[in-house]
Amino acid sequence: MKQKLIAETLGTAFLLIGVIGSGIMGETLSDGNTAIALLANAIATGCILYGIITCLGPVSGAHFNPAVTLFFALRGEHTWSAFLPYVLAQFVGALLGVWAAHMMFDMSILQVSDTMHRTGLAQWSSEIIATFGLLFVIVGGVVHKPDTVPPLVGLYITGAYWFTSSTSFANPAVTFARGWSDTFAGIAPQHIGMFVVMQLIGVGVAYLVLPLVFSKVD
Amino acid sequence: MKQKLIAETLGTAFLLIGVIGSGIMGETLSDGNTAIALLANAIATGCILYGIITCLGPVSGAHFNPAVTLFFALRGEHTWSAFLPYVLAQFVGALLGVWAAHMMFDMSILQVSDTMHRTGLAQWSSEIIATFGLLFVIVGGVVHKPDTVPPLVGLYITGAYWFTSSTSFANPAVTFARGWSDTFAGIAPQHIGMFVVMQLIGVGVAYLVLPLVFSKVD
Amino acid sequence: MKQKLIAETLGTAFLLIGVIGSGIMGETLSDGNTAIALLANAIATGCILYGIITCLGPVSGAHFNPAVTLFFALRGEHTWSAFLPYVLAQFVGALLGVWAAHMMFDMSILQVSDTMHRTGLAQWSSEIIATFGLLFVIVGGVVHKPDTVPPLVGLYITGAYWFTSSTSFANPAVTFARGWSDTFAGIAPQHIGMFVVMQLIGVGVAYLVLPLVFSKVD
Amino acid sequence: MKQKLIAETLGTAFLLIGVIGSGIMGETLSDGNTAIALLANAIATGCILYGIITCLGPVSGAHFNPAVTLFFALRGEHTWSAFLPYVLAQFVGALLGVWAAHMMFDMSILQVSDTMHRTGLAQWSSEIIATFGLLFVIVGGVVHKPDTVPPLVGLYITGAYWFTSSTSFANPAVTFARGWSDTFAGIAPQHIGMFVVMQLIGVGVAYLVLPLVFSKVD
Repeated sequence: MKQKLIAETLGTAFLLIGVIGSGIMGETLSDGNTAIALLANAIATGCILYGIITCLGPVSGAHFNPAVTLFFALRGEHTWSAFLPYVLAQFVGALLGVWAAHMMFDMSILQVSDTMHRTGLAQWSSEIIATFGLLFVIVGGVVHKPDTVPPLVGLYITGAYWFTSSTSFANPAVTFARGWSDTFAGIAPQHIGMFVVMQLIGVGVAYLVLPLVFSKVD
Repeated sequence: MKQKLIAETLGTAFLLIGVIGSGIMGETLSDGNTAIALLANAIATGCILYGIITCLGPVSGAHFNPAVTLFFALRGEHTWSAFLPYVLAQFVGALLGVWAAHMMFDMSILQVSDTMHRTGLAQWSSEIIATFGLLFVIVGGVVHKPDTVPPLVGLYITGAYWFTSSTSFANPAVTFARGWSDTFAGIAPQHIGMFVVMQLIGVGVAYLVLPLVFSKVD
Repeated sequence: MKQKLIAETLGTAFLLIGVIGSGIMGETLSDGNTAIALLANAIATGCILYGIITCLGPVSGAHFNPAVTLFFALRGEHTWSAFLPYVLAQFVGALLGVWAAHMMFDMSILQVSDTMHRTGLAQWSSEIIATFGLLFVIVGGVVHKPDTVPPLVGLYITGAYWFTSSTSFANPAVTFARGWSDTFAGIAPQHIGMFVVMQLIGVGVAYLVLPLVFSKVD
Repeated sequence: MKQKLIAETLGTAFLLIGVIGSGIMGETLSDGNTAIALLANAIATGCILYGIITCLGPVSGAHFNPAVTLFFALRGEHTWSAFLPYVLAQFVGALLGVWAAHMMFDMSILQVSDTMHRTGLAQWSSEIIATFGLLFVIVGGVVHKPDTVPPLVGLYITGAYWFTSSTSFANPAVTFARGWSDTFAGIAPQHIGMFVVMQLIGVGVAYLVLPLVFSKVD
């Protein structure tokens, strides 16, 4: 169990390094051309997801996401006793990742985001669909071809940065941690709560809908 | 059968979310730099195609495209009795995907495209070649190495956005649904008909030509 | 044999559609920002290479390149009697691909390139290294892990567009055909000859050097 | 052994051709838009890494990096007697690669970088994390699924260009060689030493931390 929790912490830290670090780099270099910044942000996030899922999947299952852990617990595929330890490891890893990114870009370690546009119905519906879609590719991959889960998640998120207005946080630990970064990928803390609520709704929808497609009944 | 139709609806909905959503995001962020918008649009579409084909291929065959269903029916590899249900599921899914994208970007759900340039011989010949090429990689993959179909289709379409003047719709359900989105990826409804005709010609060409390359005779 | 030659013609045609078509699209959309045009050009070319090599490799070996056919003939891995038919099929396919791209972008079918900068020592040395590197990844893949040849070649060429000053033609049939396209990817016909000579030198270097690395002796 | 050393030299040369060549091309074409230059630089580097690791992994282990060779020697997975020959081959290959790139872009072969910003705590901490992360994906891949090492390293580096402020040199031979190129990817020679020190610290951290995650104890 200790090894699993270290894996969840380390993996989630690298995920946030990827998200926050490439966001800062993109914003710095793109000189106001947000499209290029987001493209690099999306590609870098997909790349690191491929790495952490491939390497840590066999160790901890490579959740790095309380929504994923909750979903598997609800389905009886993850023990409830391991639920809180996993989630705690994910939150700790996410914060450590944000701070590591700040350190690497010569910024104050402790920051609070004032990105105010991550709210409203469009963003909220985005988070429901983004989280549902993430669980869709994870379950589809696990059921039909487990080896493809790393590229499935990496590519899904790279794409979902672009096809949702929220850029697909789809992860409560990531959402929380991005509140403490006043950079490209940040979110004002007062908007974190609704994002997490929407992500949990996405978990619920996935829990109800995915068995219709991925059951073996025909 | 019900599971297959849900799969076709869900997969086609995600395909359109990918196409329309990333188109809107690209147009919004790129500040008139259409090349970056199209690059992100092409990459996001390829990403979601990889996901839906990997996850739903074992369920429904992952057509998401009436041209593909027709092609397999003509070859006797899909039953005619399942032809109309599949096509209906694809059209419904496509429309739902467009509407979901509009919702996620805070736009009116119901729109009509006024993108007027998707017509003329250049665009039409593009759709013939785009559809032929799509069926070429599908058949080549299925015959020689079925596991590669998801990256084959994802990468083919990412590339074909760029090497055809029409950006490769290559799919009657996608074409129809894009008529109801007044965004980057839209097409004026009066131009849908000819696009679909050209796609059907592409199916015919593929039906005649592909056996020359993929038969086992030598 | 007939099937192999059709495969070489069809594959080379799609390769040139990818190269020329995405070059035109890039130039048209990028509004003078050549870096984005080249990035899209490189990505689209890699995408189509993955498709044609995966699908046609089991049919004809998926050369699409007289330099590759010559190299395998020199090594005794391709019959000399099939050398000229292969090369002819590649040249015919390449020209057909250029013309198809012109048609799809509403341009005169017959054109002559006046791109004058594809000459000089920098470009020529680029072509030697580009061709050597192409044969390096092909032989390395074939010897150690044949399934990886399609991504190896696709990714190599995507990268080589950027790390050689010539953007890595590395293919006499492609070079010849690009002479007849007055677009982004063109080359003035008087400069074709030296490019082909350099590509043949690259074949010679590969013939001598690669056995040092890929022999089984240690 | 001779074959292994040729492989390390050749592979490291191609790695530097990729890094330096695509950097020059990016800087030349992007007209001051550094974000696009870095994106192309990152993608091209990832592409060539995939090629050289796939093709030469079975020959020499595909280190191309003294930090990797040192790490495996410390773990007893590479003989110490082969340590210096490997490192020497990597340095020679790296320099040859830089010079080949200069030749291909019509520049003076011998140059000294005057890129002065690659110093300071942010850059140094980046190199520790970048090197640790590189060893993390290598060990994770080797332990759990060796076939994935080429995409793991290629994608990790493509991402790490963006999520570290140093653009992730993570390789003493590459760092040294980039000192002799006054181009986009260069580093002033007086800053090479600290980069290498930080990379060695990254090796030490990986040596201590990785067994916690990748041991089989649970």
